[in-house]
Amino acid sequence: MALITLTTDFGTADTYSAVMKGVILSINPDCRIVDITHQIDPYNIRSAGFTLMTAFSYFPKNTIHVAVVDPGVGTDRRALVIDAGDHVFVGPDNGIFSFILSEKFPGKPEIHEITDTAYMLPQVSSTFQGRDIFAPAAAHLSLGVPARCFGAPVQAPVSFPFPEPVLKSDTSIEGEALHIDRFGNIISNIPRLLIDTTLSAPFYAQINETTVSKTVPSYGFASEDEIFCLFGSSGFLEISLKNKSAAEKIGCCTGDKIIIRTNQNIH
Amino acid sequence: MALITLTTDFGTADTYSAVMKGVILSINPDCRIVDITHQIDPYNIRSAGFTLMTAFSYFPKNTIHVAVVDPGVGTDRRALVIDAGDHVFVGPDNGIFSFILSEKFPGKPEIHEITDTAYMLPQVSSTFQGRDIFAPAAAHLSLGVPARCFGAPVQAPVSFPFPEPVLKSDTSIEGEALHIDRFGNIISNIPRLLIDTTLSAPFYAQINETTVSKTVPSYGFASEDEIFCLFGSSGFLEISLKNKSAAEKIGCCTGDKIIIRTNQNIH
Amino acid sequence: MALITLTTDFGTADTYSAVMKGVILSINPDCRIVDITHQIDPYNIRSAGFTLMTAFSYFPKNTIHVAVVDPGVGTDRRALVIDAGDHVFVGPDNGIFSFILSEKFPGKPEIHEITDTAYMLPQVSSTFQGRDIFAPAAAHLSLGVPARCFGAPVQAPVSFPFPEPVLKSDTSIEGEALHIDRFGNIISNIPRLLIDTTLSAPFYAQINETTVSKTVPSYGFASEDEIFCLFGSSGFLEISLKNKSAAEKIGCCTGDKIIIRTNQNIH
Repeated sequence: MALITLTTDFGTADTYSAVMKGVILSINPDCRIVDITHQIDPYNIRSAGFTLMTAFSYFPKNTIHVAVVDPGVGTDRRALVIDAGDHVFVGPDNGIFSFILSEKFPGKPEIHEITDTAYMLPQVSSTFQGRDIFAPAAAHLSLGVPARCFGAPVQAPVSFPFPEPVLKSDTSIEGEALHIDRFGNIISNIPRLLIDTTLSAPFYAQINETTVSKTVPSYGFASEDEIFCLFGSSGFLEISLKNKSAAEKIGCCTGDKIIIRTNQNIH
Repeated sequence: MALITLTTDFGTADTYSAVMKGVILSINPDCRIVDITHQIDPYNIRSAGFTLMTAFSYFPKNTIHVAVVDPGVGTDRRALVIDAGDHVFVGPDNGIFSFILSEKFPGKPEIHEITDTAYMLPQVSSTFQGRDIFAPAAAHLSLGVPARCFGAPVQAPVSFPFPEPVLKSDTSIEGEALHIDRFGNIISNIPRLLIDTTLSAPFYAQINETTVSKTVPSYGFASEDEIFCLFGSSGFLEISLKNKSAAEKIGCCTGDKIIIRTNQNIH
Repeated sequence: MALITLTTDFGTADTYSAVMKGVILSINPDCRIVDITHQIDPYNIRSAGFTLMTAFSYFPKNTIHVAVVDPGVGTDRRALVIDAGDHVFVGPDNGIFSFILSEKFPGKPEIHEITDTAYMLPQVSSTFQGRDIFAPAAAHLSLGVPARCFGAPVQAPVSFPFPEPVLKSDTSIEGEALHIDRFGNIISNIPRLLIDTTLSAPFYAQINETTVSKTVPSYGFASEDEIFCLFGSSGFLEISLKNKSAAEKIGCCTGDKIIIRTNQNIH
């Protein structure tokens, strides 16, 4: 049974995400649909990209992932199908797949524009192409239509770079807050691997006015009301607070700078 | 595989909507369930009616739509099954299907009261008939029980009129804000068709203290911070703001008056 | 087709709950997943326990219920499978199944620790075992792996008592606010049965500064702006307000004391 996931900024109070499901099931009544989330911050393409990156690989091979955060809907921005072998992606050509395209796939992803109206709803609106183009494309893909049938190959999809952390020296890394989750955990862009292979000594983190010198393996090892570092489930350094929101306590927003230094640097 | 949709004001933090799913799957383990939304404003029957109206037709034929916004639960308000041929509707007789019943269906919808206790849970509470009556009815319908088996035909279901826009002259239409979506788009009750066939010249919109003179085909064509009109994906005139909430900027609530006038009227 | 439910405090804006679904479907592509809720208050094990208790029995026999509110993740708290005959439960050994284990099941629930790594993801993190241990365990259970295969039997799972109401005399019962739902209904821990079999006369309720003397069969029988009692759909006494939030009007939080007295006590 084919599997389609949905990642949008449509929320669940309006009917937009449900209508996409209705359209998909009208074309392929047998496919399954799983919401990754519909709570992407409105218009935040970068956040949708990060969300997809952390989630897609946990789904079965051949899953079709639809991502619609689409402030350029109705302009000449292209609609894309990306066949990455193990996973297929469908959405606007606005950079939403930037981080996906930097992942390692078995072969080079095959990218096609969606232009064949046979795979769209009969009437395509200029404001809701999640319904009119992306949901139908995913449904047709789930029925076995290959990516190349949707339109011409695309060489250079719109892409923005992943905010890579910067190695300042073998004693310091400069990163940023990539995401703040429901628990107030601050997820950085600094991978554990970079810290393990670079820093020569235990480290502390500086974020806004706060210095975090303790690292624990999980929340339960921390004391109450003490900000700490840990390596989170997606492999990045996180800054957390036991049973409370670290982001709120520190006053941290997405994009805030996080600096890691080895302890011998403390002065 | 049968398909059931759910539209309620139960939210997703409590167990009400999940319990309805459990009841449905206990009766018909093979049917599929899609949430339209559980975020209807508590007790807002009119909003549920509008939501259903914009969503139902995108689902496959023979979908069973359950709608439960039910402030009169446990009183003598009736429980209804409405077989409209292509789609079947289940819910309280409180006007929630008003807008649905004004839609064009292949035949005249067949409406039955739900009174046969064989199609209810063994114990029917007076406060949660979504669980005790509507979910079981939908599940039995999905197993092939025809609408007429649930109880006597109903001639005049409770109904309130759709808030139709008023044509003031061939240069002016008076409508209202029907819905405000997650993005802050203000969706009016004025269909594109009425504007196209009535107004003899380009138009502007007046809403509260704001005059909107620009109309664009989609969000991407607008300038930053400039309120504009467009024709939304459900065919109604919308008032929007690029990447921001028009409703918040204008200070607009559902029900606020929206007046459309042709440009020659500007003075 | 196997059925798995999910109850967590992960919310739906992050990818945690979606990733659990991806993991489950990667192991058993044919099983169905229903969200009970992901909106448990962060870290609130007691609230998750109450949620499970009110919902699980409406699901078909053999449903597998995964519950993950897990502040002790990564410590030595155990991971459990509880086979209760009709229903199977999977989650951390932190008291989340306390109320479930006080339910009547056909036989004595069989409880096993999850230690066999064959039923976990290859890499088990110390911060997201919903993904690494509980979702895979549920998926393997849905494929027919018996509970005893996951690890050693557990005799005494962590458990806290249900907050039972206290019978002060045959004219008075002292309980508390167990849950406040989306509508602002205050759901107490006082079962209808206790009131019916104990109190010798009509009763009134005292909650914070408010005395509630009216009891109605359902919301529609109450007057506007008048706080009332009713017996809710889960069998407990509730305190409500027609079309508004009783909790907000009274200023009531979970845990607040609710005292029931027979009317002859009014003075």
